[in-house]
Amino acid sequence: MIEVDYRFPPGVDAQKQAKVIAVGQTVGTWDARFAHRQASLREHLGEVIRVETENNTGCNIATIRFPQTNVENDISSLLTMIFGKYSMAGAAKVVAVRLPQDYGLSPKLGIIGIRKKLAVFNRPLVMAIFKPALGLSPEDHAAILKEVAYAGLDIIKDDEILGDLDIAPTLERLRACRQVIDEVKQKTGRTILYAVNVTGSADKLLEKARLLVREGANALLLNVLPYGFSVLQALAADADVNVPIFTHPALAGAFCAAPEHGIAYSVILGTFMAHGGADAVLYPAHYGSLPFDAVEEVKIKDSLRSRNVFPVPSAGIHPGIVPKTIGDYGNNVILNAGTGIMDHPDGAAAGVRAFFEALERVEKGESFELESLANGALKAAVEKWGKK
Amino acid sequence: MIEVDYRFPPGVDAQKQAKVIAVGQTVGTWDARFAHRQASLREHLGEVIRVETENNTGCNIATIRFPQTNVENDISSLLTMIFGKYSMAGAAKVVAVRLPQDYGLSPKLGIIGIRKKLAVFNRPLVMAIFKPALGLSPEDHAAILKEVAYAGLDIIKDDEILGDLDIAPTLERLRACRQVIDEVKQKTGRTILYAVNVTGSADKLLEKARLLVREGANALLLNVLPYGFSVLQALAADADVNVPIFTHPALAGAFCAAPEHGIAYSVILGTFMAHGGADAVLYPAHYGSLPFDAVEEVKIKDSLRSRNVFPVPSAGIHPGIVPKTIGDYGNNVILNAGTGIMDHPDGAAAGVRAFFEALERVEKGESFELESLANGALKAAVEKWGKK
Repeated sequence: MIEVDYRFPPGVDAQKQAKVIAVGQTVGTWDARFAHRQASLREHLGEVIRVETENNTGCNIATIRFPQTNVENDISSLLTMIFGKYSMAGAAKVVAVRLPQDYGLSPKLGIIGIRKKLAVFNRPLVMAIFKPALGLSPEDHAAILKEVAYAGLDIIKDDEILGDLDIAPTLERLRACRQVIDEVKQKTGRTILYAVNVTGSADKLLEKARLLVREGANALLLNVLPYGFSVLQALAADADVNVPIFTHPALAGAFCAAPEHGIAYSVILGTFMAHGGADAVLYPAHYGSLPFDAVEEVKIKDSLRSRNVFPVPSAGIHPGIVPKTIGDYGNNVILNAGTGIMDHPDGAAAGVRAFFEALERVEKGESFELESLANGALKAAVEKWGKK
Repeated sequence: MIEVDYRFPPGVDAQKQAKVIAVGQTVGTWDARFAHRQASLREHLGEVIRVETENNTGCNIATIRFPQTNVENDISSLLTMIFGKYSMAGAAKVVAVRLPQDYGLSPKLGIIGIRKKLAVFNRPLVMAIFKPALGLSPEDHAAILKEVAYAGLDIIKDDEILGDLDIAPTLERLRACRQVIDEVKQKTGRTILYAVNVTGSADKLLEKARLLVREGANALLLNVLPYGFSVLQALAADADVNVPIFTHPALAGAFCAAPEHGIAYSVILGTFMAHGGADAVLYPAHYGSLPFDAVEEVKIKDSLRSRNVFPVPSAGIHPGIVPKTIGDYGNNVILNAGTGIMDHPDGAAAGVRAFFEALERVEKGESFELESLANGALKAAVEKWGKK
């Protein structure tokens, strides 16, 4: 069974609306002409389980149970059922979705598989984003990767904005960076993952993903919301795409940021990504550069971890917030920084080193007060970006 | 060039945020290390064109111009660029997007092609939705279709909620209904279009669409927002899918309904559907059963018509509102009714006849006052649902 919590602002007749959803988002009404189908029709009806008032807000939360036979074990048909037409009916927000364990997909690799690929088991992973986001050549990308890779980076990703553009076609970016990855492997034995942004119309995107993997891509990045959960599912279920899929939250705010409409971040970036086949999920950290609710962040983390999906709190991450992140997450987290690595005063390699210095200090329980820091990459980072 | 209007509520520093968007949603910042790439980086930057205050609301509208070279001539990469990360940054709504004429796709058939298929050129088209939405067998669907088809219906569609379910697998629904369509063609010479709902993960959905067309589907229905604009584009660009694609607005409210967040209905259901390859687009009518803004509806209609896409105002349509619809739309509109046909007191065939009676009365300029109506299908409909 599938259960969904809808939040209605005070003033909305939640009992009535809950009934509208349970019936209107499933069978609809029928008359005597369908009396002979009564049993079958009833099986497909939704059911109002309860309606409760939130103490602090006066909002009402209605819980509806939907038959699993109405949907196709995927996120897209689920979205249509739980909020398709009703999303246009007035103020209401989907704030929780509870799915059976076996609903949808599990990650092919997830936390365990990504750690195995990197052979790193006992610390958070450090991830960078190519910056500037657009306008660099494939060779520029390779040069940046070289800098950060030898400094100890685990993972790098394209900026989500970088598609398959003339200035740096996706396959050429991969080929240029793949040389660096191979060289690092040969010289140091370390594996670097490069999450290549896959884009295009659904058919082309899937073809491109397979081509990239054949050409040596060892991770992919997908903007799930602009491209569709059906595309994530196709990638995740594709045996030839045997690399981790990193998902980006681009456009999530259009669904999730409004207080009385849409779907909660924890549902879209937590529940749905975790059942949609993602291996690692990026989302805003509440102490980062985007406004984000700490409670929603915890829910996302828990949804992802419960299905072996790597949480990647992002946006405004820099070395000075590592103590806070490790405090919240422990070791099973990917520290993902764009400018927080690339714009380090002493260059991108120093940006990576600053993260590793930070991790070491956290492990030893040492302070991040400026005066306690030795000169070096971490101190320069904390001087620039501060600490939490 | 691509221009986007963002609306900020009073209190937000629109000038500052416009700059954040122009830079942050394109290249980002760069330092001296990239001085040699300056020219290339600059080419990819967005630009703030103007910021103006709305008279009546005190909101500010910022217009940003984006380079077309940053995107892939599709809706998905466009969404990532114009509102990817920024959708999570605070209160802001995308209220207009202006694209070059040749951006994206045009419909394969659109208004002209759909009319040719039906050989109906001089009146609005009448479309029905199978009801109840779920729980009927393929034979039930065929029986319903038979009833409405002989009454003169032009088009029927699945309810958007009906996926590929055990109780009525998509291919079996098509096969059962296709027999009726063939019989009607043989006996009356008339063509009936059946827009079959295509669902599934992106790869399976595209395969299924091709299979359905090979098996005789003469139209498709796609829930674009749950499945993704990249799926619409793939279908629209596929030479084997040589039938009109009807798009359903399911989930649009999650993007569009909030006053200060997300993307306007006219952008999602107008501009993006029109450049995304849809042939006919469903959206709520402002006098229907869903709350909808009349101004947004006009914008949608105009965006669609300007690219030969059929407007299909929907939700709560019944024979009594035909004068209003024809007043707003003229003849180039599809009148789409679910319960407004299927729940007619004298049955679904009478529901269809009531629409044709209504069209005839509108053409003759006759009143819809109850006392002026002769006994028959239209009178019974107006007695049940009223008039506008």
